[in-house]
Amino acid sequence: MKKLEIVYGIHPLIEAIIAKRTIRTLFFQKGLRQVSNAYKKLIHLSNKEHIPIQTVSKQKFYQLRNKNHQGVFAIIYPIETYHIEDLLPIFYEKGKNPLLIILDRITDVRNFGSIIRTSACAGVDAIIIPKKDTAMIGSDSIKTSSGALFKVPICQEKNILNTIEFLKNSGLKIVSATEKSNIYWYNIDFSGPVALILGNEEKGVSSKYLTISYEKVGIPVIKGISSLNVSVACGIILYEIYRQRKYQSKIHF
Amino acid sequence: MKKLEIVYGIHPLIEAIIAKRTIRTLFFQKGLRQVSNAYKKLIHLSNKEHIPIQTVSKQKFYQLRNKNHQGVFAIIYPIETYHIEDLLPIFYEKGKNPLLIILDRITDVRNFGSIIRTSACAGVDAIIIPKKDTAMIGSDSIKTSSGALFKVPICQEKNILNTIEFLKNSGLKIVSATEKSNIYWYNIDFSGPVALILGNEEKGVSSKYLTISYEKVGIPVIKGISSLNVSVACGIILYEIYRQRKYQSKIHF
Repeated sequence: MKKLEIVYGIHPLIEAIIAKRTIRTLFFQKGLRQVSNAYKKLIHLSNKEHIPIQTVSKQKFYQLRNKNHQGVFAIIYPIETYHIEDLLPIFYEKGKNPLLIILDRITDVRNFGSIIRTSACAGVDAIIIPKKDTAMIGSDSIKTSSGALFKVPICQEKNILNTIEFLKNSGLKIVSATEKSNIYWYNIDFSGPVALILGNEEKGVSSKYLTISYEKVGIPVIKGISSLNVSVACGIILYEIYRQRKYQSKIHF
Repeated sequence: MKKLEIVYGIHPLIEAIIAKRTIRTLFFQKGLRQVSNAYKKLIHLSNKEHIPIQTVSKQKFYQLRNKNHQGVFAIIYPIETYHIEDLLPIFYEKGKNPLLIILDRITDVRNFGSIIRTSACAGVDAIIIPKKDTAMIGSDSIKTSSGALFKVPICQEKNILNTIEFLKNSGLKIVSATEKSNIYWYNIDFSGPVALILGNEEKGVSSKYLTISYEKVGIPVIKGISSLNVSVACGIILYEIYRQRKYQSKIHF
């Protein structure tokens, strides 16, 4: 049986409701008067969706005391995850030009949340993570993602190597982001279906995935800093893909 | 008199030593055996620079217990800040094509650190912050920036509006990043001297700065998420500037 989750913060909860997540109870902190538009929107949405609400004392927030909970949290049924083998045919059927992200041993929950947020903004169709990384899909990553975790399907796969082979055979270009490449991000053709692999904060993408990648994409750094943060690198590459595809569509149509 | 600072974590301390910051004492946690190359490098550098070292018990790390201190911290003399009026002539003298960042009410220390890290990678010449934001230049932002805070000069200015006017009169193109613009980031000419204004996480760039900006740059979002994280948006724009300038230099030389 899957565990229930705690989600906190106004924006993540608004996103959860909009995304039709099943909320068991919504808890508001007693005596905390809030007048922001976001707060009003949350109240309005939770009434509209008939979500059970409780007003509780500050003590109930004790476990979240170091978090920016904004006086509100909810108990939510877990996020549904998918398999890319099931989703990819649907993407093609819908006439999409698939753009996928594969996360290889990302360890920082904030990086994970930030990558999801940027992926939703840039129109990524799905994010693939290893089965064992289930712990990443928790309240902190939901908060960092600003609720975007509800908007991009997350696929959990037992064997990422097999998944990459599957994607390759399904017509996707496999591109690994690595500091060790001197092929710059804007020199790679991203016009067709793409799966972008992002690696561990310290060690980068595993060599076994690098080997089977079609391209390795690098982003140069100037002032001798070790490297870009992985979630920033992700944003730079995803928006280059956006730029190229926009430009392509102008040429062809 | 300026306050002493605490800097913690292996990489930030390596960067601090390389950047010739004056370190009063370096504290290592007793009994914590580390074998990483980074750790060895830190020991090597601190010996080479004759930095006083103390091995102390775990209790000395109590104040940092929620931080990823990796068993090491130091007491360091404060970071020097500058005035852009003093630096800009030097940049021009050196034949640079100045690229500056102006931060308008960034409140999250992690965003601040991340922007500095990306700025160092992308070759930003200076970051301008309001005088009152002194609190931002602390140990958490140093840690998030991976030590990059020592590599990009930080300018503190009393009146940002006057500073923008000064930059405008000095030949810089003032560009504000704002969701409300439908001029995409890759459609702006960044080939000449640029000052990029990044605004508050919730409210964006102040209207008084928007009014005097030459251009407003937008990055579209697809799946209805409110907006990109400011440090990711910063990375996308800075590396577009990199791309354009690289491309320009290929054409002209």
